Amino acid sequence: MTRIFNDPAEFAEDQFTGFLDLYADRLRGVPGGAVALRSGEPQVAVVVGGGSGHYPAFAGLVGSGFATGAVVGNVFTSPSAAQVYSVAKAAHQGRGVVLTFGNYAGDNMNFGIAAERLRKEGIDVRIVVVTDDVASASEEDKRRGIAGDFSVFKVLGAAAAAGLDIDGVERAGRAANAATRTIGVAFSGCTLPGADRPLFTVPEGQLGLGLGIHGEPGIRDEQMPAAHELAQLMVDSLLEAAPQGGGKRVAPILNGLGTTKYEELFLLWGTVAGLLREAGLEVVDAEVGELVTSLDMGGVSLTLMWLDDELETFWRADAYTPAFRKQRAPVAAIGGFAQESGDDVRESHAIPEATPAARALAGTAVGALETMARILHANEAMLGDIDAVAGDGDHGRGMVKGVDAALAAARIAYDGGAGAAWLLQAAGQAWAEHAGGTSGVLWGAALEAAGRSLTDGRSAYADQDFVAAGQAFSAAIVDLGRATVGDKTLVDALLPFVEELAAGVGHGGAFPDAWRAAAAVAAEKAEATASLSPKLGRARPLAERSVGTPDAGATSFALLAGGLADLPAGALAL
Amino acid sequence: MTRIFNDPAEFAEDQFTGFLDLYADRLRGVPGGAVALRSGEPQVAVVVGGGSGHYPAFAGLVGSGFATGAVVGNVFTSPSAAQVYSVAKAAHQGRGVVLTFGNYAGDNMNFGIAAERLRKEGIDVRIVVVTDDVASASEEDKRRGIAGDFSVFKVLGAAAAAGLDIDGVERAGRAANAATRTIGVAFSGCTLPGADRPLFTVPEGQLGLGLGIHGEPGIRDEQMPAAHELAQLMVDSLLEAAPQGGGKRVAPILNGLGTTKYEELFLLWGTVAGLLREAGLEVVDAEVGELVTSLDMGGVSLTLMWLDDELETFWRADAYTPAFRKQRAPVAAIGGFAQESGDDVRESHAIPEATPAARALAGTAVGALETMARILHANEAMLGDIDAVAGDGDHGRGMVKGVDAALAAARIAYDGGAGAAWLLQAAGQAWAEHAGGTSGVLWGAALEAAGRSLTDGRSAYADQDFVAAGQAFSAAIVDLGRATVGDKTLVDALLPFVEELAAGVGHGGAFPDAWRAAAAVAAEKAEATASLSPKLGRARPLAERSVGTPDAGATSFALLAGGLADLPAGALAL
Repeated sequence: MTRIFNDPAEFAEDQFTGFLDLYADRLRGVPGGAVALRSGEPQVAVVVGGGSGHYPAFAGLVGSGFATGAVVGNVFTSPSAAQVYSVAKAAHQGRGVVLTFGNYAGDNMNFGIAAERLRKEGIDVRIVVVTDDVASASEEDKRRGIAGDFSVFKVLGAAAAAGLDIDGVERAGRAANAATRTIGVAFSGCTLPGADRPLFTVPEGQLGLGLGIHGEPGIRDEQMPAAHELAQLMVDSLLEAAPQGGGKRVAPILNGLGTTKYEELFLLWGTVAGLLREAGLEVVDAEVGELVTSLDMGGVSLTLMWLDDELETFWRADAYTPAFRKQRAPVAAIGGFAQESGDDVRESHAIPEATPAARALAGTAVGALETMARILHANEAMLGDIDAVAGDGDHGRGMVKGVDAALAAARIAYDGGAGAAWLLQAAGQAWAEHAGGTSGVLWGAALEAAGRSLTDGRSAYADQDFVAAGQAFSAAIVDLGRATVGDKTLVDALLPFVEELAAGVGHGGAFPDAWRAAAAVAAEKAEATASLSPKLGRARPLAERSVGTPDAGATSFALLAGGLADLPAGALAL
Repeated sequence: MTRIFNDPAEFAEDQFTGFLDLYADRLRGVPGGAVALRSGEPQVAVVVGGGSGHYPAFAGLVGSGFATGAVVGNVFTSPSAAQVYSVAKAAHQGRGVVLTFGNYAGDNMNFGIAAERLRKEGIDVRIVVVTDDVASASEEDKRRGIAGDFSVFKVLGAAAAAGLDIDGVERAGRAANAATRTIGVAFSGCTLPGADRPLFTVPEGQLGLGLGIHGEPGIRDEQMPAAHELAQLMVDSLLEAAPQGGGKRVAPILNGLGTTKYEELFLLWGTVAGLLREAGLEVVDAEVGELVTSLDMGGVSLTLMWLDDELETFWRADAYTPAFRKQRAPVAAIGGFAQESGDDVRESHAIPEATPAARALAGTAVGALETMARILHANEAMLGDIDAVAGDGDHGRGMVKGVDAALAAARIAYDGGAGAAWLLQAAGQAWAEHAGGTSGVLWGAALEAAGRSLTDGRSAYADQDFVAAGQAFSAAIVDLGRATVGDKTLVDALLPFVEELAAGVGHGGAFPDAWRAAAAVAAEKAEATASLSPKLGRARPLAERSVGTPDAGATSFALLAGGLADLPAGALAL
């Protein structure tokens, strides 16, 4: 929802004041909107406009190679005729004015009245109305204008900057509109500043196909699909509505409406791009981002402008506005690639020969990793939840990614004839490489160290060797993490575990019994990380957020130690 | 929440695939991240990185004048050491590598391990850790890195692009970090892809001061303040934590965390800018937008980097990346202003002389506008709600803005000695100028037409004159709106009203009786606009959204007609 405002009724004016302050070096505020500081030769003025709440439409598009001026109405409301008149007068450079806006009744009237008034003063005024929303009407000239505004404005701005006369600019703009189609989908509604409930809503888990940017009715609601299905739905909708003789080159816009994030747009673009190419289309300078928004609405729209040579030239042209900047030649010329690299990251080692004992232990290690993977998959959500209390909630996912990679590497090593030492090193490297995060580094290094401590040339392994492996495991973690007991980390459970295991084996007990006793200690110590004292490195915690929840790393370690105690006794004891 | 994905576990990889497709002309994907296509002379490589979910951090900042490469981890998770190594190798141009990232345990470890591995191969590697979050710790080197990442990376990137050696680049980066402070606030939590509930939340109507970008604990929760109080809170927090000897020039970043919209950021910036200047600071190239985000988290952060000459040079320098583009000299040189204009918008007319009858009628008109204003204020929310069903929900607000402006203009006209004709014309112009939207144009033009029909030179006004004014009112609306009866607009109520009024007066009835009868007809006809047939211009409406709700324009007209019937009979009959 919209949360930042003073008097909600003054939202549009207040946000525009801040906007003008920010871009005072490039834009000038005039009654009703903003105009670009003039640059170079006089050109046809391109004046865009509409309601507020759609940033960067409309004021964010004023600048070199784009709009000359923007008229800024109240939130979701057409500007008045007087505002249009004022901005157009300020933007006019003696070569005429093109007024351009999305097709809504209020905008048509207000811009129309202003045009008549300007014409009475002898100014040559043309109107280019954008009608790109294929969901809003079957007749092309009745369609609403949505993200295709951007495409049409861009062409008009580039044509004016190229020095075309008003006939040429108008013609290019009309051609752009005739070649442009958009389909929008909404996942959630938006809330006007100060309102206590949304202007409209979309049922949770649903998608409103064709819903307008002010919540105008769409075609239908349906179940929210996976990203690749959404991409297919949008691409199909546009290709069905393609203009006659549209050709094979398209300028796409994948537009976020508000709360849909850039990462989601990129993800969707990955599929959209493929579908467009499969359809035989050539993608020209795709734009993915927030270009025509609707406050905090959740949703996306896909726009295609089918290009001819002229439209392609204007679409590709440079521009520099608050919200859109494009330069064909970057700051420095593009040279060759940086050195080819990255191929040496995974060095290929020949697997060293292993004794039968090392091979048998390798089989046990694969079994242990399988058990660990099962435990971590089963507890992924729980580990994420407790990590979310004082950390970033990634522990469960990180551990699962790590163990899956380690297990896969271990299986390959086993099939290749590896002993336990080599296998655990490969597993640790894979864990570290694929898990990421803190836990990934620690577990990867620890497994690798444990493996290194074993060596694959022995004819037998004694309990004491496994204790030494455990000590190598914990030493690696202490070295890297630099935490000590009491810091409320993994180390709080790990060190007492290793001590107890060593003591149990030292007293001559059976290895499985010593392991079970050590696992019980680990569980107890992991529980104890939930206490009132702040966790290391988390200064000034909110007491009510971090009290009573154990550390996620200590918890996952204790879980794994406990789970491995249930391996067949023979496996642990070998 | 995060809604667009295929397999949630593959979100980070999938979004990065789409990102690389989009920017394939400028970036190259390598295992673990992306590097810029090399431009110009070899330079020190600046490799940024961290978890996904923070776009444009980190991959969106790779390009000329900024980062050489970015390492991309899983969502909210440090990349692995192997990923860092891979990207750094690919980014290296023979002049050394600076690794730079926010201060989190996982990042410190993974980047640290990679640095050691690179150094073993003879590559000169430096590490610059960003520690800008003043809410996370009192000791500067323990602080987390948040939006100040952007400031420090920018300086490092510009220093490298300027050709400095690795000592110089590292020094500039450390100076940037020492000079940078950020305070963040959160309004709402964020949801990991595929999760069925948020990673963390902020109680509705509250603000989490200092909450981290992964939901790490902040300083305290408090009531959500007005925008100007929020600005004060953030500016005060930073000025208290200013670096020693920081000087008077600052580079601010007002950063949106996810669902906070650009308009809200501009509004907040309007106050922040003023407070900084009041504190005697000079604002240098402020950036307002989404620069370091946190999925769909609601919130903002304010960063200040205190500048010396070197930092100012690097902060101001050109850059061109997917998400950040800056050019000191725009595409064409900035010339003078566009022609000064806008001053002639409000022409000043001398108020023509009015007869006593015209003056008396003017008093009645002011009273009628007062009644209308009262009715519209009382019904603003209701009118917005019914407009939200098939329109954009702005009808209530637009009518209130219009009538307030009209009433203010009418009072000034009355105090200036105007008659009813001139007064209504002034009121209509003010309504049209200030209301915006469709209804603003229509009501403004209609009042103006009604006024014009009266003239201020008469010695008396007859009932028939008011009927004629009503006919002029409705003719203006029909002319402009081009709707006819049955289109389910204002016209459905207006034309029958005027017909009934004319008939009542024609049959010799008392004017107040005729008006009341006409108002009853208007109410009935307004109700009837709620029906099963689609509204004009709304193709393919969702039946369940628009059925049973009357048109907002017809409703407000009927309300006003009914309310004016309750004026003292003498006032209407004059």
